[in-house]
Amino acid sequence: MTSSIQDVFTHIENNQQLFVKRLAEWVSVRSVSSQPELRGEVLRMVQMTAQHIERLGGAVEMVDIGTETLADGSKLALPPVILAEIGRDPAKKTVCVYGHLDVQPAQLEDGWDSDPFTLTHRNGKLYGRGATDDKGPVLSWLNCIESFQAVSKALPVNVKLCLEGMEESGSIGLGELIAERGKSFFGNVDCVCISDSYWLGTQTPCLTFGLRGLCYFEIEVQCAQRDLHSGVYGGSVHEAMTDLTQILASLVDSSGRILVPGIYKSVKPLSEMEAQLCANVDFSPEEYRLEIGATTLQQHTKEDILNHRWHLPSLSIHGIEGAFSELGQKTVIPSRVVGKFSIRTVPNMEPDEVERQVKDYVAQTFSELRSPNRFRITMPVGSQAWVADSTHPNYTAGRNAMRRVFGVEPNLIRDGCSIPVTLDFARHTALNVLLLSLGACDDGAHSQNEKFNLSNYMNGMKVMASYLEELSLVLPKE
Amino acid sequence: MTSSIQDVFTHIENNQQLFVKRLAEWVSVRSVSSQPELRGEVLRMVQMTAQHIERLGGAVEMVDIGTETLADGSKLALPPVILAEIGRDPAKKTVCVYGHLDVQPAQLEDGWDSDPFTLTHRNGKLYGRGATDDKGPVLSWLNCIESFQAVSKALPVNVKLCLEGMEESGSIGLGELIAERGKSFFGNVDCVCISDSYWLGTQTPCLTFGLRGLCYFEIEVQCAQRDLHSGVYGGSVHEAMTDLTQILASLVDSSGRILVPGIYKSVKPLSEMEAQLCANVDFSPEEYRLEIGATTLQQHTKEDILNHRWHLPSLSIHGIEGAFSELGQKTVIPSRVVGKFSIRTVPNMEPDEVERQVKDYVAQTFSELRSPNRFRITMPVGSQAWVADSTHPNYTAGRNAMRRVFGVEPNLIRDGCSIPVTLDFARHTALNVLLLSLGACDDGAHSQNEKFNLSNYMNGMKVMASYLEELSLVLPKE
Repeated sequence: MTSSIQDVFTHIENNQQLFVKRLAEWVSVRSVSSQPELRGEVLRMVQMTAQHIERLGGAVEMVDIGTETLADGSKLALPPVILAEIGRDPAKKTVCVYGHLDVQPAQLEDGWDSDPFTLTHRNGKLYGRGATDDKGPVLSWLNCIESFQAVSKALPVNVKLCLEGMEESGSIGLGELIAERGKSFFGNVDCVCISDSYWLGTQTPCLTFGLRGLCYFEIEVQCAQRDLHSGVYGGSVHEAMTDLTQILASLVDSSGRILVPGIYKSVKPLSEMEAQLCANVDFSPEEYRLEIGATTLQQHTKEDILNHRWHLPSLSIHGIEGAFSELGQKTVIPSRVVGKFSIRTVPNMEPDEVERQVKDYVAQTFSELRSPNRFRITMPVGSQAWVADSTHPNYTAGRNAMRRVFGVEPNLIRDGCSIPVTLDFARHTALNVLLLSLGACDDGAHSQNEKFNLSNYMNGMKVMASYLEELSLVLPKE
Repeated sequence: MTSSIQDVFTHIENNQQLFVKRLAEWVSVRSVSSQPELRGEVLRMVQMTAQHIERLGGAVEMVDIGTETLADGSKLALPPVILAEIGRDPAKKTVCVYGHLDVQPAQLEDGWDSDPFTLTHRNGKLYGRGATDDKGPVLSWLNCIESFQAVSKALPVNVKLCLEGMEESGSIGLGELIAERGKSFFGNVDCVCISDSYWLGTQTPCLTFGLRGLCYFEIEVQCAQRDLHSGVYGGSVHEAMTDLTQILASLVDSSGRILVPGIYKSVKPLSEMEAQLCANVDFSPEEYRLEIGATTLQQHTKEDILNHRWHLPSLSIHGIEGAFSELGQKTVIPSRVVGKFSIRTVPNMEPDEVERQVKDYVAQTFSELRSPNRFRITMPVGSQAWVADSTHPNYTAGRNAMRRVFGVEPNLIRDGCSIPVTLDFARHTALNVLLLSLGACDDGAHSQNEKFNLSNYMNGMKVMASYLEELSLVLPKE
């Protein structure tokens, strides 16, 4: 008798301790892609993962994707992308799994309750940077495949892995790679699955079929060659911070409306189907508000909130580089400051158009200040919104797997955040992409105290196992 | 034959190497008073100095001045103030020397060319945090006194020392101490001398008789209980950064005019004598502009520039705590941000009045945003402007000493920065205070690459020696 999917589930359940220990090892690697000085750690994380895949019998190719040019003009080598194959049975269908091994910046002083790079188990939650975004899910795939092997059950489909180390910095270089390998590595792939997204709430599992895009801007203003003492120089210098705050204040009003002229022009009006999907999902505005800890939200009904998170652009001011940012009182006139903000985009906004609109508006605002300071605006990241065909068999497999493991029908949702690689697949291949969401809405990706629920980690591996089996059943035969 | 002041000068010249090595030891102590985690280093600096004074035969009292309350409500012990006496001859006059042992924050990454806490000698300049502000000058006094002793020359006047470790944080606790000891420690003092100020240029020595005050404000806005992912939450949250940038942008226009209603009301009109002093000083607007590295200044004539630095208030926005401040792109909605700005005040602005004007205006601006976010404004530092009687014999002694060492008449100037203790002396004693400036205008106090010219360090000790002798001659006999 051959093993059943239930045997795979049992093996997963019996190895919880091992799987948590492995996640702790992964989280301990400070693979922050946006901090050049930590690039070595990203590389180490990629190498560790490649070795892990090889131990599972996978064939690994480490693809050199070149260098990135930093703000100061210097070049920095990008971490290689892992392209790997586990199983090459020509009689089977092939799924490509994408994930990323880099993480957002994190420091204990940002307000974490425990060291962000030490996985900490508290009340059924595994706290650590990257636990949910995206080390936990990537490791889940490897644990899932190992569990098939452990119970001697053949993989129902061939699995290809595409794992990168630059997702949190705009997936630089990945698009070109996918384009280049569109006919080779990705040529025999039937569909793509990505676990790098979140449920709308904490209980109901979700499949995600749409994402917003991201246009990230940096505004640099320089008033002097070095920081100045505000007592000695204050009153005689055109201060860079004065200019920058004027510009930042001109971007968005306190109701959240973006003030850049024309920015809403290309926004696709809400369709009836989209409105219906908003109405159908299981979402409590009050729970959402409490989870955030906000006094009042910008909107008050389920439909309005989801519409603003999924179908409308938003602008966030993230911070300022070069100004005083510590505790206490420093009487400095910062000489060079870089304001950072981004716009989340939706269909049919084009990054090129957004870039032009924002740059024109900001340049105009700056010129009205009549400031003699040096000024520059750049858009280091610009990605489109993405929407998938949610009627594809890939989604059927995902839905069946979710139902089997959780016992409920998953919600079909969109998400406000971006996963650049979805666009690369959309642009360079004809492959359907399923976002098999495993994180809960309160996981705190990009935030302090990021966590992955232990139950989601464990159930997620079962969903993945079940999804691989479902795929072999629902994908159309040639 | 007894030793002459020339013998003291010769001893100073012969000991340059030793005196530089000592300054390196002092600079290596990270005595940053505004960073609570470095309070131990401030304490160590105070203790090292006390031992140094005792080695010179001084009688030292370490005065406990209590605790400060931090922003989070916790209490932190203040470093003790050193009150010391070197010489107690009742036949001699007594000068009190004030200085501070704490420094501004500094990190190599801020843009220093060498580690800020390693004194580095390059091209006749001694680079390091505190080199000029104020460790170099304080150590100069001790080196000067040692030089008198080394050549067996009696001190011309008794020297009392009042050295604190909280100057860069508003000299908390010092005012109360001066008030308390007004009749005891300070009772027999004839005048006060402080070397914690800068020349107007790099060549002409200066005596400083006026300073601006400082009102430092912190605006706290909180929109959520933790930082949020801008993709997931952007569009549904009233973002704290949106509110804060609106408020900061409402404070000052790009011509430097403060927009807080009434703020200029109490500003004393420029007197003819003040205008004349501006006209008399040796100051080149173009050299000043080049030293800053600015494209254009707010004003263009000597008189206008000095008027704005000395006689008019200015507002500087220093930075934001809690927002993203590093290199790279982080897509965060910061949950709690604290904007920091300060106003330099002039006669006759009162800190209480400034506090009320700013708080009223900012509260009004915030209420017009109709934001549901938590909002708070505080003024952790509020000090008055200060002007001394520059016709006092104390100034005559300073002028004679400067002329003797540098061979030129010093400029009589004011300065835009604050030294809170000047006010404490003004408020609690009737003592004349002389600011015996030894730093050059390009020393970069509070900035990257702070330095003390080796020549100013060496000549400064001679000026101090000469000043002590001049004092014994010009102070009126009883």
